[in-house]
Amino acid sequence: MIRNIKLTIEYDGTNFQGWQIQKNDSRTVQGSIENALKTIFKKNIKLYGSGRTDSGVHALGQVANFKISTSMSTDEITKALNGNIPKDIAILKTEDVSKDFHAQYSAKIKTYRYTILCRKNRCAQQRNYCLHYPGKLNIRSMKEEAKSLLGKKNFKSFQASDPAKKAKNLKDNTVRTISDINIKRKADLLIIEITANGFLYKMVRNIVGTLLEVGRGKLEKGCICNILAKKDRNCAAFTAKAHGLSLISVKY
Amino acid sequence: MIRNIKLTIEYDGTNFQGWQIQKNDSRTVQGSIENALKTIFKKNIKLYGSGRTDSGVHALGQVANFKISTSMSTDEITKALNGNIPKDIAILKTEDVSKDFHAQYSAKIKTYRYTILCRKNRCAQQRNYCLHYPGKLNIRSMKEEAKSLLGKKNFKSFQASDPAKKAKNLKDNTVRTISDINIKRKADLLIIEITANGFLYKMVRNIVGTLLEVGRGKLEKGCICNILAKKDRNCAAFTAKAHGLSLISVKY
Repeated sequence: MIRNIKLTIEYDGTNFQGWQIQKNDSRTVQGSIENALKTIFKKNIKLYGSGRTDSGVHALGQVANFKISTSMSTDEITKALNGNIPKDIAILKTEDVSKDFHAQYSAKIKTYRYTILCRKNRCAQQRNYCLHYPGKLNIRSMKEEAKSLLGKKNFKSFQASDPAKKAKNLKDNTVRTISDINIKRKADLLIIEITANGFLYKMVRNIVGTLLEVGRGKLEKGCICNILAKKDRNCAAFTAKAHGLSLISVKY
Repeated sequence: MIRNIKLTIEYDGTNFQGWQIQKNDSRTVQGSIENALKTIFKKNIKLYGSGRTDSGVHALGQVANFKISTSMSTDEITKALNGNIPKDIAILKTEDVSKDFHAQYSAKIKTYRYTILCRKNRCAQQRNYCLHYPGKLNIRSMKEEAKSLLGKKNFKSFQASDPAKKAKNLKDNTVRTISDINIKRKADLLIIEITANGFLYKMVRNIVGTLLEVGRGKLEKGCICNILAKKDRNCAAFTAKAHGLSLISVKY
């Protein structure tokens, strides 16, 4: 019997060229796990992720699935995978799911977290997991402005042009629904968590870059409504660096 | 005028051969900071740490001092150092202190933290900062047994033989005072914090190894009193791995 196996995966994206296998020999998370699957099951197995993450982006709860006929228990699969993947990836959970489950197409809600170290001096231990921002930020105005992102909107202004899709000449539907934005201070850290039914290419990093400009006072009250209305990537601010971003969870 | 400068230093010990400069060309924290001092002040400057940390051990609040005649402000020194040291070290604070301050000899109290990930599956992001322990631990008995370590005691049983001191044929005073041991569970993590007026070579890691054996039920109630009484390293358990250990603070 063919089983459909769902994996919940943590990774440190620092030394990966992102999630998705590439034509060159780049070190990718998908590639590393598929290699381990091949070692364990002695055949090529395709792994379907909930979505790509870019080079340097981390995950605490990426989800992927693959099909296999095996008598191994889910615990045994977890153990075998963790023994065969590199140390910067960890399989947190392995589950049997129904045969129509697809990590990407069945996904209903995703949450990303962006972490900013807000203090004068940089850190050492968490340097690959947060953006160091030494200046002052008006967090109240960031929270206030972020409210304009909530709900079902056209986020075209926050979408980076995606070389893969450009090549295929695909036109995206750029409407998404952000159900929650939580901006909280925790000691020296400013944590921005965004939950939506889906995200456009680099959407979280473009939103964070824009919120940082709001916090610095470089963008005024009402700017996010204006940027959304323009439907033009050039109206939003810079793309915040990859290493502050982490995919926290995918819900089905 | 010669100034005495105190540094508070964070580092990720993963890729260092410990704090102390060695005769070979090992990458050390002290060596990396002394190199930066030489670049900034154009001369050799000796840096005095509060104590050595071993290869792989981290610090959130190591303290060191050096003497210099300069008109730079403490903020300028912090900035110049952070610009010239590797990314896995960060200078958190720079202060002028009295001329008789010595990071090692003036130290009154140190706190070390040992972090254990207590769950079946390993992690990826914090893999260099915690020991993965997949089995069950009786935390109540660890806490109970740890009480026997509190106070002024001879910790000879928890001291590893130190090759540096052995070479010099030094005999240590092995009496220390542990003023606090705090064992707490925080989600999947078990955190053991030990505060003392000083620590013998590998003392924290030997204590943690012994407490783990208590938690596993391999050592019985009263074992720590017995081990202390024997004054023999062979009576205590294994040395817990370096990467779970972090020097949290040094007080003066």
